[in-house]
Formats: sequence, structure tokens, C-alpha cells
Amino acid sequence: MDITPTPRAADLDTRVRAFMAEHVYPNEASFEQEIVDSGDPLHIPPLLDELKAIAKADGLWNLFLPDERFGPGLTNVEYAPLAEIMGGVWWASEVFNCSAPDTGNMEILAEFGTPDQQDRWLQPLLDGEIRSCFAMTEPDVASSDARNIEARIERDGDDYVINGRKWWTSNAINPRAKVAIFMGVTDPDGPPYQRQSQVLVPMDAPGVKVVRPMLVFGFDDGYTGHPEVTFTDVRVPVTNLIGAEGAGFAIAQARLGPGRIHHCMRLIGAAERGLELMCKRVLAREAFGGPLADQGVIQDWIAESRIRIEQSRLLTLKAAWMMDTVGKKAARIEISAIKVAAVDAAIYVLDRAIQAHGGMGVSQDTPLARLYAYARTLRLADGPDEVHKRSIARRELRKHQV
Amino acid sequence: MDITPTPRAADLDTRVRAFMAEHVYPNEASFEQEIVDSGDPLHIPPLLDELKAIAKADGLWNLFLPDERFGPGLTNVEYAPLAEIMGGVWWASEVFNCSAPDTGNMEILAEFGTPDQQDRWLQPLLDGEIRSCFAMTEPDVASSDARNIEARIERDGDDYVINGRKWWTSNAINPRAKVAIFMGVTDPDGPPYQRQSQVLVPMDAPGVKVVRPMLVFGFDDGYTGHPEVTFTDVRVPVTNLIGAEGAGFAIAQARLGPGRIHHCMRLIGAAERGLELMCKRVLAREAFGGPLADQGVIQDWIAESRIRIEQSRLLTLKAAWMMDTVGKKAARIEISAIKVAAVDAAIYVLDRAIQAHGGMGVSQDTPLARLYAYARTLRLADGPDEVHKRSIARRELRKHQV
Amino acid sequence: MDITPTPRAADLDTRVRAFMAEHVYPNEASFEQEIVDSGDPLHIPPLLDELKAIAKADGLWNLFLPDERFGPGLTNVEYAPLAEIMGGVWWASEVFNCSAPDTGNMEILAEFGTPDQQDRWLQPLLDGEIRSCFAMTEPDVASSDARNIEARIERDGDDYVINGRKWWTSNAINPRAKVAIFMGVTDPDGPPYQRQSQVLVPMDAPGVKVVRPMLVFGFDDGYTGHPEVTFTDVRVPVTNLIGAEGAGFAIAQARLGPGRIHHCMRLIGAAERGLELMCKRVLAREAFGGPLADQGVIQDWIAESRIRIEQSRLLTLKAAWMMDTVGKKAARIEISAIKVAAVDAAIYVLDRAIQAHGGMGVSQDTPLARLYAYARTLRLADGPDEVHKRSIARRELRKHQV
Amino acid sequence: MDITPTPRAADLDTRVRAFMAEHVYPNEASFEQEIVDSGDPLHIPPLLDELKAIAKADGLWNLFLPDERFGPGLTNVEYAPLAEIMGGVWWASEVFNCSAPDTGNMEILAEFGTPDQQDRWLQPLLDGEIRSCFAMTEPDVASSDARNIEARIERDGDDYVINGRKWWTSNAINPRAKVAIFMGVTDPDGPPYQRQSQVLVPMDAPGVKVVRPMLVFGFDDGYTGHPEVTFTDVRVPVTNLIGAEGAGFAIAQARLGPGRIHHCMRLIGAAERGLELMCKRVLAREAFGGPLADQGVIQDWIAESRIRIEQSRLLTLKAAWMMDTVGKKAARIEISAIKVAAVDAAIYVLDRAIQAHGGMGVSQDTPLARLYAYARTLRLADGPDEVHKRSIARRELRKHQV
Repeated sequence: MDITPTPRAADLDTRVRAFMAEHVYPNEASFEQEIVDSGDPLHIPPLLDELKAIAKADGLWNLFLPDERFGPGLTNVEYAPLAEIMGGVWWASEVFNCSAPDTGNMEILAEFGTPDQQDRWLQPLLDGEIRSCFAMTEPDVASSDARNIEARIERDGDDYVINGRKWWTSNAINPRAKVAIFMGVTDPDGPPYQRQSQVLVPMDAPGVKVVRPMLVFGFDDGYTGHPEVTFTDVRVPVTNLIGAEGAGFAIAQARLGPGRIHHCMRLIGAAERGLELMCKRVLAREAFGGPLADQGVIQDWIAESRIRIEQSRLLTLKAAWMMDTVGKKAARIEISAIKVAAVDAAIYVLDRAIQAHGGMGVSQDTPLARLYAYARTLRLADGPDEVHKRSIARRELRKHQV
Repeated sequence: MDITPTPRAADLDTRVRAFMAEHVYPNEASFEQEIVDSGDPLHIPPLLDELKAIAKADGLWNLFLPDERFGPGLTNVEYAPLAEIMGGVWWASEVFNCSAPDTGNMEILAEFGTPDQQDRWLQPLLDGEIRSCFAMTEPDVASSDARNIEARIERDGDDYVINGRKWWTSNAINPRAKVAIFMGVTDPDGPPYQRQSQVLVPMDAPGVKVVRPMLVFGFDDGYTGHPEVTFTDVRVPVTNLIGAEGAGFAIAQARLGPGRIHHCMRLIGAAERGLELMCKRVLAREAFGGPLADQGVIQDWIAESRIRIEQSRLLTLKAAWMMDTVGKKAARIEISAIKVAAVDAAIYVLDRAIQAHGGMGVSQDTPLARLYAYARTLRLADGPDEVHKRSIARRELRKHQV
Repeated sequence: MDITPTPRAADLDTRVRAFMAEHVYPNEASFEQEIVDSGDPLHIPPLLDELKAIAKADGLWNLFLPDERFGPGLTNVEYAPLAEIMGGVWWASEVFNCSAPDTGNMEILAEFGTPDQQDRWLQPLLDGEIRSCFAMTEPDVASSDARNIEARIERDGDDYVINGRKWWTSNAINPRAKVAIFMGVTDPDGPPYQRQSQVLVPMDAPGVKVVRPMLVFGFDDGYTGHPEVTFTDVRVPVTNLIGAEGAGFAIAQARLGPGRIHHCMRLIGAAERGLELMCKRVLAREAFGGPLADQGVIQDWIAESRIRIEQSRLLTLKAAWMMDTVGKKAARIEISAIKVAAVDAAIYVLDRAIQAHGGMGVSQDTPLARLYAYARTLRLADGPDEVHKRSIARRELRKHQV
Repeated sequence: MDITPTPRAADLDTRVRAFMAEHVYPNEASFEQEIVDSGDPLHIPPLLDELKAIAKADGLWNLFLPDERFGPGLTNVEYAPLAEIMGGVWWASEVFNCSAPDTGNMEILAEFGTPDQQDRWLQPLLDGEIRSCFAMTEPDVASSDARNIEARIERDGDDYVINGRKWWTSNAINPRAKVAIFMGVTDPDGPPYQRQSQVLVPMDAPGVKVVRPMLVFGFDDGYTGHPEVTFTDVRVPVTNLIGAEGAGFAIAQARLGPGRIHHCMRLIGAAERGLELMCKRVLAREAFGGPLADQGVIQDWIAESRIRIEQSRLLTLKAAWMMDTVGKKAARIEISAIKVAAVDAAIYVLDRAIQAHGGMGVSQDTPLARLYAYARTLRLADGPDEVHKRSIARRELRKHQV
């Protein structure tokens, strides 16, 4: 396992860090405040577009995309430290056109899209001109088991007719989101893993309705929010099918691996941010006769945080290296492992950082509570811990079965 | 230690449970929805007043107040199970006129208030006609060490002139909150624990300004929110002083014991609510070929939840029994212990309940995320865990010092 | 729930504590050393008999036995604090004739024994003249599920012929152990819970063979050790049957409740001992410029230890109170809960106490490592945690099943 | 960071694994049984020497030694997987002449020894003809702070006169241990870190007395035991000094880094062993209607075990890689981190493996209890966790100090 940064990775690392230091961190508080002051929870601060333009011009763009036809073609090991840096600020990934769910959607379209689909949807996504949604999770069934999906995609002449209720459809509330990849059942009587298909649904198609925002703890996540959306007799041409009918589950699997590892990379960055803020806080804050930094319990939190971050980062890099060398599928269990480990580390560090900040820690005055909500959600999203652990255990047990 | 329910406690227990079943739980979702639909984050659903009227008429009112002159005079052991029941719904305590910070304020006014102060402020609070604030915590200093408080209360003729910046001033945003108990320094050169005083400040006094709401994991807690408030040259007559000059710290201490134990009682109720919702969810939800309730890991969460709830309830009842028998002061360390233990139990149970609900668990569709935010905040509010643990350790060590 | 000490319980508490202070603690080290120096791992220091005589003369005897015909008839709530005190020294329970497995055997004989059985075995056990074994656990099957037991008890004329392999048969290596209660299958085709019976087997019966000592971590537990024992064509008269044929499982259940709660009581005493030793150690030991007691991390251990001990003690007392008031069977789940909780607390405290002692903590120079081994074993003995938690979860789920 | 196995490391990995499979695992039980049957707790089974001869002939010898003059000169990254394999059986390292404390002693003698010292002591150690001790820890002071050491080394003519009481002096009881490296104070008034020196003391020198064995959770560890040893007016020639007077602390530091990382490597192997045994056990054992392996809680243990092992292994390899590339000193904090992390992982896995085995888990019938005792001891030996965490926290805080 060789995770030595390549020269281009080292260069990008320096430049993304510098970009964050120059453009993102100094504007972090004002970005939030501008949304509050606008009175519009969906307000998108113009700074976002300004920074996107700079990042694009600097070549700090689409860094996530391993496909060299469409992006810089970084390996996962090369991209990991960059995604990590972006993970310290919730809106930073988008500045580099590296934010979910667009990243996964771009990967799918690059790998499975027709040239027409790529022209119409992939290119504007790559250009950062539009955003997109991934409509898979449903309120009425356990999505941890994809076979449960109930939404329907029915052929009717040259169209598909789409019906279903989805939630946690990130970006659906974003006026820039122009398209959703929708997962539904095309063949309810087929083999369990070949019943589903994925189709492209323009967000302005008749019958697409954003029902309500979903809150994460109390956060609505503004323009990137995750609403409940109903699809009622929505018609799209059959050319909107991605891949083949019945390929929905397989495409979702192809999408999930990179999606999960990207989240883990960002989580490690979120944890690093938490540790940094914790250290700064306890150095600055006095109580009971000295800085909090002198207190043994707090030093214990800091040391544990460092240990857990290092460990989960190395495991994430190992999973990235396996994806690069043996492929997404062979790295499946390693990705499950980091999904558990990186979430664990991030939750630990952010929780301790919150505690070290007192009341400020749960408030809007630091990014900690929001990052915590993000990390905590990932313990149950994209496959809850329990499902990932079961997969890990089964592989382990198989080694010893006689 | 005898914590057998007295006949009146048993009767009240039955009646409060029945009230919750008849009036609160069935309206829980619509109460939230009405606030959302109103478009006004400070909206107070009329149901609140309707239920207050019923509770008052039924004698389910001011149950928290041990002082028989002003309330039913329940002991802490008698009140504990009632507060617990209320703790399952964030707005339920107010229905019974048992919600913080009013409870603590009423206790202070009952114990230390002048007859005039009691007429003007205590009576309307007891009647549920107004609400109130407690302005102690400051953004710029570690409030875990009360000696750090910087706000000033300066004598000027027959007035006090008040200046300071406070936050987490619950209710300050509530139009019904008519008065705040304000803690500030009257004698900056006095002995550390005799520098502070408490004065009553009408919320409509010139110079009182609600600066901004504070969020708790994204929640603003609506009309009961906890804003940052500035007090700039606010004038109140010297008759607004509570107790003596320099008694602020002592009064705060007298207030904190009951305040903490009430929070613990509610937390246990919140944990019970979480366990109940978790059980119902896993019985109803199917994945991987059967109900979630059949999965061993989830059964482990349920068993651990029950064990932790039982243990923290018994410890809380012990602390209550000590307050009743040997007094608030002698029970100080026991209160510190439950502050740690009840928060721990509640956080554990609510976190597992969230996990068992998947995405719904972090959303507004259950009370779990909000109750979690409440529980998590109490790990750092009213004295962070670390300060309470230090007190506990010191007493323990003193037993063995030679 | 009223757990106020009765006058006789308070008196016994005082006297047992005084006894320990006068007779046990001062001899704790020399007791161990005498065994080491004897060169005989089964050596029984004469002090044991001396102290038994004193305790018996003082009426500090058979305190565990609720049956007033044979003992002082203390309730479980009355006995709990006494058992707790004894739990701080591994050999102290025997001094008061309150040590397992004799206690459980005496209870069985008192409840189910014939007058002849009581004359022959119960009386000398009550008198502390002999000791006894309980031969249930088998090496080849999971004993957490009693239906798995494979040992056979076959009727042959007026005899039973007994065959089986047992282990963890405490006392079997003790020359004073004169009898074992043996559990085996009498009716292999009967209903699962009516297949087993219990018979009395004299330890000197032909065919009883102690195969080897079993170690717990590295401890062999000397004369009270827990060897593997084979029973080969051992003949006993049918009058040695306890209760009826097929009643073995039911009698085992009747035995387990008190057995478990007694272990929990002792564990809490072991934890108290650990906390006491930890406090004394950190007050006395200096490192990095001051006593270890000043270090925040260690204060955290001490506070957590106190909190966990208090909680598990209260839960144990609740279970005891339920046994006293509603019976062993109705208290079954509460006993499962303390089995988990008291073990957890004891393991936590003892592990931290060990850590605070450095190398001495794992050595023979404190009782900590041995008490740890005892506590850790109880997480898997008498029903492993996992089985108890499953029972707790099932009851919880049943409350919400529709 | 490149931790790809080099060809020679890959070859050694294969061969050490094959050696263990052929020679060690099949003899593991009989090795233990032979010691028990011998009746001599210090018995050394002849198999040990037979296997040493084979390993030596095969070139699987002194693999730990990075110094190419005396050994194969493997890097730490190359050695790590080999040490890990050896860690699964407590006596396996010695087979490859890679067991502590000889390894550290050989490193010291290779680096700081005079040619005469190397001839007399290093060579026979390298040849596996003798064993050795490291006499540093003292019963009366906190050894976590090396400045506390009280033993004296006093110059008297051409001799040093040595007085002190040491414990945990592994091997001192081993008849093959011919020499100890003894750490004591030569200059009590010197600067704190220059007071100590190290001298070679033949174990048969007059005045060296093994006082008693020390137990680790009841284990005496037989011929490799860790006794208390007194040194009373022991005389050695001044040529037995290692390095310079006052260099004792520095040499100890130079020794500790490799010593700690070797322990961590072995611990990871111990954890892998635990996981393997746990998997095999739960596949083979049935309860409640199916193999334990089907139970969710046990799958959770297995998955957590795999995750924790992987993470701590990667962190250990990172520390090894740093030692190889930037040196022992620069890797100091990383070594502290794995000292915490690898111990944590090993304790977790071994504890769960014990639980999965029921009573057998704590007994002599698996290596688990002994490996647990080893892992648990390392949380307090070689610097307790708390000291390592403090170092980690301080470095972290320094990054943010202004």
C-alpha cells in the first residue's frame, strides 16, 4: 500500500488549502449571516458563485471525478486529502464542484449515460451551471434494504410514467437543481435485484412536487435542503433511462462506493476542523484558575481525537487505494469499514469539541453543531452502521467457515 | 430511603398520565405543524392556553413548588414522576405551569422575594399569566465558574443601572415574558462569592434588547427560544433587588439544585419517550426478512436503555429524597451525580432511538432529535459534566484523606 | 419502594463492618501469604475457621437465608448491604457462612429437600461443618441454554446411575466439600424444560473424579477452585433426588435468582473496595509534580466510579425489594438487569483502580486483579449478559406489541 | 507513506506464517500442558530449543534488529507484520529470538555497547544462548516519571556498587538469564535527566536476589516471569557501564521507542488471534436454535474487531514508517499514539473473544485470558495511557498556540 502523495496531488493539496485560507474561512461567518439576514432560508449568497468562478479558473474543479474524459482524473488516494480539506466547511465542496449528490450523479452519467444524456445533463453539471438530485430514499420503507423500494416507473409508449414518494432528496429545493436521477421499480416481478431502474427526471416536469423540507436535528440546510418530494404521473421519454431496465440496483451500487468514501473523506476533514476549534478554544478560555487547555480531561479528549482521526484517515486511504488498485467492488467491505470508522471518529471529536465550547458549541456561532448533525446523519444514511457491520462480519466469518 | 408514592402522588401520577394521553400526545404533531404553517417562528398555538386552563382547573398546576404557601407543596419525591411524564413532550411542562426558567424564578421569588415583588411578579407567574427569564450566562466568559460573571449592576440613587450581555436567556423572545431575573456584579472588589446580586428587570424596560436567537443544533425553540440579550443602561428601582446585595451567588445556588433535578426528571421522561418510540418503530418496521425488533443489536439497545433509565431514575429519586430529608445543600453532590447520570442515560437512549428510526429519527417527524438536543445541551449547561464530576471526586477523595 | 434499613439490618451492618475491620482486612495480606508460603495451592489458612467460629458466636451467620426455619430470616433488602460488605474480600463470605455455591445449595435443600436430606446435608452446611458443590455447567455445550445439558441420570432399581462431565464445579477440589447437587437428564424425550433432575451426590462416591483445576485468568482460586469433574457410573440411592423427577430446570431457576442477586451485592462491594483503594492510592502517589489525585482524568474515574456504584446499588436494592414483595419470579427481569448493571459497574471501577495502581494493580499486591477476574467472569457466568439483555428487551417489546 | 511489503519482507511473511502453522500452533496446547505436568512452574519445554534451532537454521532469526551489523537489518515496516504473527502465541517470539526484553537489550548493546560488552553479552544473546533482564521499574515510585528512580549506582574505585529494589524484571527467574541491564542513579544532584546510568549486572553476582514472582492477573508467566529483585551491594567493574555516566535516561529513551512499537505489533497479532478464535467458536457453538455466529450482537463484535484491528495496524505501520524515515525521536508522538490505540484494539477484541467463549474464555483452554492480561498490562506499562495521551495533547495544542 503506497499512499505517498503524487506531485500533482501535493500541488493540489497546497492550492486547495491556500484557497480555503484565502477565500472560504474568512467568509465563513458572513456567509451564514447573509443567509440569516436575507430572511430567505433558500438564499444563495453570491459569494458562492464568485468562489466557484475562481476555483474553476484555478483548475480546482471537478477534482472528485476519476474519469479522465470529463475531469482531472485523480485517483481516490489523490482526491482524499482534498475532499478532507473541503469537509471542514459545509458549503465548501460546492465551490470546487465536488458536492453531493452532484458528484455521484456525474459519475453515473459519465459511466452509464448516453451521449445525449451527457450533453444535456452531465456537461452543465461539470460546468457547475446546474445542480441535481438523487431520488432514492422513501419514507415508507427501510431503504437500508434496496429491495424495499416501492416507487414505480412504468412504460407507456415512448414514455415512462413515474409515481412515488421520496424524501431526503437533497437539492430538490434548490432552484438550480434541474434534474433528478430517480430510482423506481420497473419490473415488480423480476428477480429482487433486477426490479429497479433509474431514469432522469427534469425537476420542472409536471407532477414533481416538493412537499416540505426535512430537518436534520433542527437544520434545514437551506438551498441544499433535503425535502420530501412526490412524483405523480410524471412523464419522461424512455430515452431518459440510465443504462438498461433492471440495472437500477447495480448502478446504485456503483454509485454508493464513491459516494460513501467521499463522505468519509469529508468527515475526517470535519473532525480535523473540530479538533482545531477545540484546541483554539481551550487555549483561549480560562476557568478555575487557568486555561482549559491545562485540564487533564480536556487533554484526554484532544489526544483521543488525534488518535481516532489518524486511524480513520489511514483506513480511508487504504479503502481509496483499494478502489484505485482492485476496484470499487473488491473494496466494498473496506468502504463499509470506513463508513463505520470515520463516522465514529467524527462524532467523537465533534461531540468533544462541542463540549469544550460550552453553550457556544451547540449554537450557530461555530460550525460544530452543523458538522455534528452531518456526521450523526451519516451513521444512519447510505446504509446504517448495523448493515455495514453485518457485511463486515459475514466476510470475516466466511474466512473461517469449514 | 423510602420512595413509595404517597396517595396524593399516586393520584397525581394517574391524572397527569391521563391528561397527557387525552390532551397532549394526540395533539403533538398538530402543535408542531401549526407553528410551521403559521409562518411565524414565534407563534404560540392557542392549544397551549386551552390546555393550561384545563390543567389549572383540574389542579394539575404548579406541581413543582414545594412551598405550601404558593403551591400544592409536593415533595421532590412526589413531584419527580410527574415531571418525568411531562418530559416526554418539549412543551408539556408549560401546560402544568412547571416549565423552566419560570419554575426556578418562582422558587426564588417565593423564598427571597418581598411581598411587593411577590404581588407583582410571583402571582402572575403562579397564575400562568406571564412568563419570565433568567439572565445569567454570558457569551464572553466561562459561566461554569460563576465568579467570571462580568455584567454590572450599579447603584445610582434609588435605581440600579444595569449593563451586560447575556445569552441563552430562554423566553426572552416570548412576548409573554414580562420580567427577567438578572445576575450581575454589584461589588467588583468584594469577596469572590459576594460580588454578585440579582435584580428583577421588566423585559419592556428601555435598554433591554433581544439581539438574536441562539440555535441549539439548528433548533430555535420558537417562542421559548434562548436569545442573546443586551442590557444597556437599564434602570430599575432598588426595590427590584432580590434578597441582599451580594447575595446573588447564594441565591443562584439555591436555585440551581431544584433546577437541575427538575431537568433530570424531565430527561428521564425524555428517555422513556425515546425507548417507547424505539420499541414501536422496530416492531413496525421490516428489513432483511423480519421486523427490526428481532435483531439482536436492536434488542441490546432496548435492554441497555431500560437498564440505564431505571438506574438514573433511582438515583434521581435518591437525590430528591435527600433534598426532601436533609436539604438542598446536603444533597448537592447527589444532584451533581444525577446531572451526569441522567444526561448520560437520556443521550444514550435518544441516540439509539434515532438510529432505530433511520432518517426519520433526525427529522421533525419524531420528537427524538429535539429531545436529543435538549439532553445534549444539558451536558454542558447548568454546570458541564466535568465540573460536576470534579465536585464528586473531591468529596470522594476527602473521605480518604489523612 | 422502601429500602430504609430496619433496626436489625442497621445493627447487622454495623457489626459486619466492625468484624471486617477487626478481623478480615488486617489479615488479608497474611491470609494470601500463608497460602503462598504453604507451598500447597489448596491450603486453607486456620484463620478461616477461627473467624467462622467468632462470626457464628456473634450471630453473624447464615445471613443470606430468608427461610426463618433455618436462618435469621433476613429479607433481601436487609441482606444486601451485608453481602456487599463481604464482597470486598474474596474469602470473606465464607467467614459468615454466606459463600456460593453453599448458599444456593442450602436454599434448595431448605425449600425442596426431604427431612432426611436436610438432616444429612443441610444441617452440616448450616453449621459450616462441610462445604458443597453445584455441578451443572458442562464443557461441551452452551450452558446459557439449560436445554443443552447432556449429563445423564438414569434410574436403575433403587439407584440413580450418573454419568457426565462438568466443569466450573466450585469447591469440588475442596476437601471439605462433601456433597454436590448434580443436574442431569432423566427423561431425554420429555418436554424440553422437564427433562432434567437434580440429585445429591456425595463427593466421595465411587466414580467422581476431579480431572483438573480450571483457571480464571491465571487464578486457580485455591481450595475454592472450580475444577472439571467427571462422573462415571456414579450410583446414588433414589432418595437422593431433590424434589420430583423432571423438576431440575424449575429448581435451577428457583436457585438462580438469589444466586445472581447475591453475586451482584458482592460485586458492588468489590467495586466499593476498588474505589476506596483507588482513592487511597492516588492520594499517596506522586508523579509529575503532585499527587495523582490532583489529575483531572483520575478525578473523572473516581466520579464515574461513584456514580456507577450508586446507580447499580439502587437497582440491586430495587430488585431485592421486588423479590421480597412480589417474589423471585416476578423480579426475574429486574435480576437480569442488575446482573448486567452491577457487573458493568464493578468492571469499570476495578479496571480504573487497577490503572491507578500501575503495575501493582495487576499483581497480587492488591485484591484488584482477583476481584476484576471475579467480576469479568460474572459477565459470562450465570447467564451471559447477552442472554439477560435479550430477556429484558423482550419484556420491553411486549409492552408495545399490538 | 509507502508500506508496500518489500520482496524480502513478503518472503519472510510467508515463511514465518508457515513456521507458525507447522511448528507452533500444533504444539501450543501441549507446550502448556507439559509445563503443568512437569510440576515445575519454571519448566522450559525442550520444544522451545528445538524450534529455535529450526528458526535459526531457516534464517528466521533476530528479525527485529535493524542494525545490519548484527542482524538481518529489516526496517520497522518490514518487521512489523512478522512481529504481529509472533504475537498470537505468548512464547513464539522467543523461537525467533525476538522476545522482550532481550530485543531491547540487544539493541542497546549494539548501539551503545563496547566491543568487550558486545563480545561477552551481545553475541550470546544474538545466538540465543542466553537471555537477559532489564531492571528499571521500582515498587516504591511512579515509574511513569523516570526522574523518580531511586536505585543507586555508586562508584567505588574500579567498581560500581549497586543497591536497589526492582520489580517486573522479566526473565530474572529464568535460569538462562545471565545478565541484567540495571538502571540507577549515579549523580543524585545532577540535572534531572542526567542523573541515571545503566550498567550490566551478571545475574549470578553476589547480592542479586530474586525475592518473589509477581503475578499478572494470577499468571506468573513461568520461566519468563517478572519477579521482584533486590540488588544489595552488588559490585560490577566500571567497564560494565553502558555509554556514559548520566546517559541512562537517554539510553532508556532510545530503547523505549522500538520496545513500544514491538509490543504494539505483537498486540495486533494477539488481537488477530482473538478474532480468529472468536469466529471459529461462534461458527461451531450452537445456542437458542442456531450457531452463535448468526446472532447480531456477536456479528457486531466481529465487525468492530476487524475495524479496530485494521485501524491500529495502519497506525502502527505509519509509526514504523516514520521511525524508518525520520527516526525514532521524530516518531515519538506517533509511537505514543499506537501505544494507546493498539492496546485499546487488543483489549476490545480479546475481551469480546473471551465473552464469545463463555467460561472457556477465561480459562487455560484458550490463549485468550493470557493475551488479555498481556494487553491489559501494556495499558499501564511502558508509560501508562494517560502519560502518552498527555504528550499527544501537548503536541496538538502547540500547533495552535499563539
